[in-house]
Amino acid sequence: MKTRFNFEHLHTDPSGARRGRFITPHGSVETPIFMPVGTAATVKAMTTGELTAIGTQIILANTYHLFLRPGHDLVKKMGGVHRFMNWSGPVLTDSGGYQVFSLGDLRTISEKGVEFRSHIDGSKRFLSPEVAVEIQEALGADIIMQLDECPPHPAKHEYLARSLEMSLRWGKRCKEARRKDDGSALFGIMQGGMFEDLRRISAAGLIDEGYDGYAMGGLSVGEPKEKMIEVLSYAPNLLPTGKPRYLMGVGRPEDLVMAVESGVDMFDCVMPTRNARNGQLFNRRGAFNIKRLENRESEEPIDPHCGCETCKNYSRAYLRHLFICKEILGHRLLTQHNLFFYLDLMDNMRKAIEKDQFTAFKSSFYAAQAGDGDGGWSWPEK
Amino acid sequence: MKTRFNFEHLHTDPSGARRGRFITPHGSVETPIFMPVGTAATVKAMTTGELTAIGTQIILANTYHLFLRPGHDLVKKMGGVHRFMNWSGPVLTDSGGYQVFSLGDLRTISEKGVEFRSHIDGSKRFLSPEVAVEIQEALGADIIMQLDECPPHPAKHEYLARSLEMSLRWGKRCKEARRKDDGSALFGIMQGGMFEDLRRISAAGLIDEGYDGYAMGGLSVGEPKEKMIEVLSYAPNLLPTGKPRYLMGVGRPEDLVMAVESGVDMFDCVMPTRNARNGQLFNRRGAFNIKRLENRESEEPIDPHCGCETCKNYSRAYLRHLFICKEILGHRLLTQHNLFFYLDLMDNMRKAIEKDQFTAFKSSFYAAQAGDGDGGWSWPEK
Repeated sequence: MKTRFNFEHLHTDPSGARRGRFITPHGSVETPIFMPVGTAATVKAMTTGELTAIGTQIILANTYHLFLRPGHDLVKKMGGVHRFMNWSGPVLTDSGGYQVFSLGDLRTISEKGVEFRSHIDGSKRFLSPEVAVEIQEALGADIIMQLDECPPHPAKHEYLARSLEMSLRWGKRCKEARRKDDGSALFGIMQGGMFEDLRRISAAGLIDEGYDGYAMGGLSVGEPKEKMIEVLSYAPNLLPTGKPRYLMGVGRPEDLVMAVESGVDMFDCVMPTRNARNGQLFNRRGAFNIKRLENRESEEPIDPHCGCETCKNYSRAYLRHLFICKEILGHRLLTQHNLFFYLDLMDNMRKAIEKDQFTAFKSSFYAAQAGDGDGGWSWPEK
Repeated sequence: MKTRFNFEHLHTDPSGARRGRFITPHGSVETPIFMPVGTAATVKAMTTGELTAIGTQIILANTYHLFLRPGHDLVKKMGGVHRFMNWSGPVLTDSGGYQVFSLGDLRTISEKGVEFRSHIDGSKRFLSPEVAVEIQEALGADIIMQLDECPPHPAKHEYLARSLEMSLRWGKRCKEARRKDDGSALFGIMQGGMFEDLRRISAAGLIDEGYDGYAMGGLSVGEPKEKMIEVLSYAPNLLPTGKPRYLMGVGRPEDLVMAVESGVDMFDCVMPTRNARNGQLFNRRGAFNIKRLENRESEEPIDPHCGCETCKNYSRAYLRHLFICKEILGHRLLTQHNLFFYLDLMDNMRKAIEKDQFTAFKSSFYAAQAGDGDGGWSWPEK
């Protein structure tokens, strides 16, 4: 029998940061965790072997993209997304809603679901809570996300209030649409925009229904950073302590540090992968673009404190050369570094939480960004 | 002290195929060998670690491209091409001539050298035998190629006769321009088009001058296949048996088999890498495009007899999906397979020659292409 999804809340640091672990049919995951985004059943530029080597525990795949290409029926026929892409670890799939809602004029929302046109061939498609579950079950996801409406920012209180109620009904329909008893999880998604009263209503509705985990949606949708900080100051703690909390689509390294302190357990974001393909690199000092002229003759690695294969073997001068020549190897090496950086950051945070030293780690993180000391993260001791 | 370039002719199979070994300052190479092309100091889509893992012994880098970007001075400053690109094995650099002569209207040839305009920024540049050697020495090549004129096909006897004499003089100037005594080799290049009398004159002139190795240029320049076969029936044996023979820019797997039988020791070609990026794959049955609809639901690997990581882990259906979605991972996995296929073919040929079974191997190679037996190469036994 397959293992059933289960979350264990292991420890809370004095700061409020949480250490946990969840078990899925494809293995267990130590939280807090960052999930690399594998849109079309591939984390762009990376093999699954490399993902494992840099410490990836779980990846996210996009329902919208796989629905359109190659189609969930084909993926199912090929043995599911794990076998298709040669990844034996856990996979979380989103519901497809976020991409569909981003289509603007190409989609029409009703209580029933969303009608939209494919951005690839213009064909008419329909996504409902039932279809979203059917697709995700066909893909063979370990964690299935409910279909929800993700309103853009800014949106009015009245609109958001109506929308979150529909999302709650959609969540219920997702639960009812489940057919496979394969141990996979269904997560509900909290909405409510930047309004605390609405976030409370949304959270209460979700808890009332009961899910295997809870996500926070509707953040990182273009709102000012202060707004996100404000919402994160109360929203995570509206959710049950015994279930994982997932902040969708966030974010920059400093956002992850802040959100972990707020009690978030799971993250995904295209930033490390997409930015790498634009030459934008993260390191302990912040971020910089490899294209910059100052890197032309630099023998330095991207980050002298980084243990990734890119930093161990390649100079900024070579990486800049590859990037300027649009070489595939450039995309590979930069992606590998950025993902390693994110995963290493999460690893450091997990260790700090275990030792009740999250606040010290956070100070060290900001000190490194300011260029203090040797520029490394000194907490926790490794 | 650095090892000096040296070639050992180990064995000749009854067919005429040769087994040899050459030693360079960066290690030894078993011949016959195929050299993956690393144009801009990267074999497109591959890391050097992966190159080693698939059995690459030596790579080729392009002087023309590195001269323009990032510039040989920068590469020299960064410790040479080996350190720059993190490759510890031997590197052969071409002279830049082939690319410059391909520029058509953008270049003017004289006895002194070639004036040309960069295809990147239109800047005026000059390449002479002396400059070609200077650049290749700055890059730190293990094998340096003389600058020669590579006339297009078809060209008149009279033109080719004059051109090859100039190439002989250019070869002499390359020898005189050598400054570094680092154990690296200088290869001369035979020209003469499709004319046996001219090939004889060219070979005699080169031998008279004396080089560490001898290349055959001016083939695979658009001539009919029969013409190349004709030239290969006599040209390799115009060259000394005690030096390596390098057939430049060739070719398809069947060309390699034919040329090895003709006594050729070294090959390079962009075909496995470039074709992979166009979805064109080589296997024991010949070649096919991954885009084809018949691969849509295929659980088969590219080649069931192939031992590469792509064939061990991925279905044609997944590879087709990646290729259609223009995913970087698609380029990677297809490139890895094609290169492995070429290197594995050379490895099989080396083993067959050692056992005096090259003719049997060749029969097995053609039988596999025809789909006979189990479709594998049965000679030599592995």
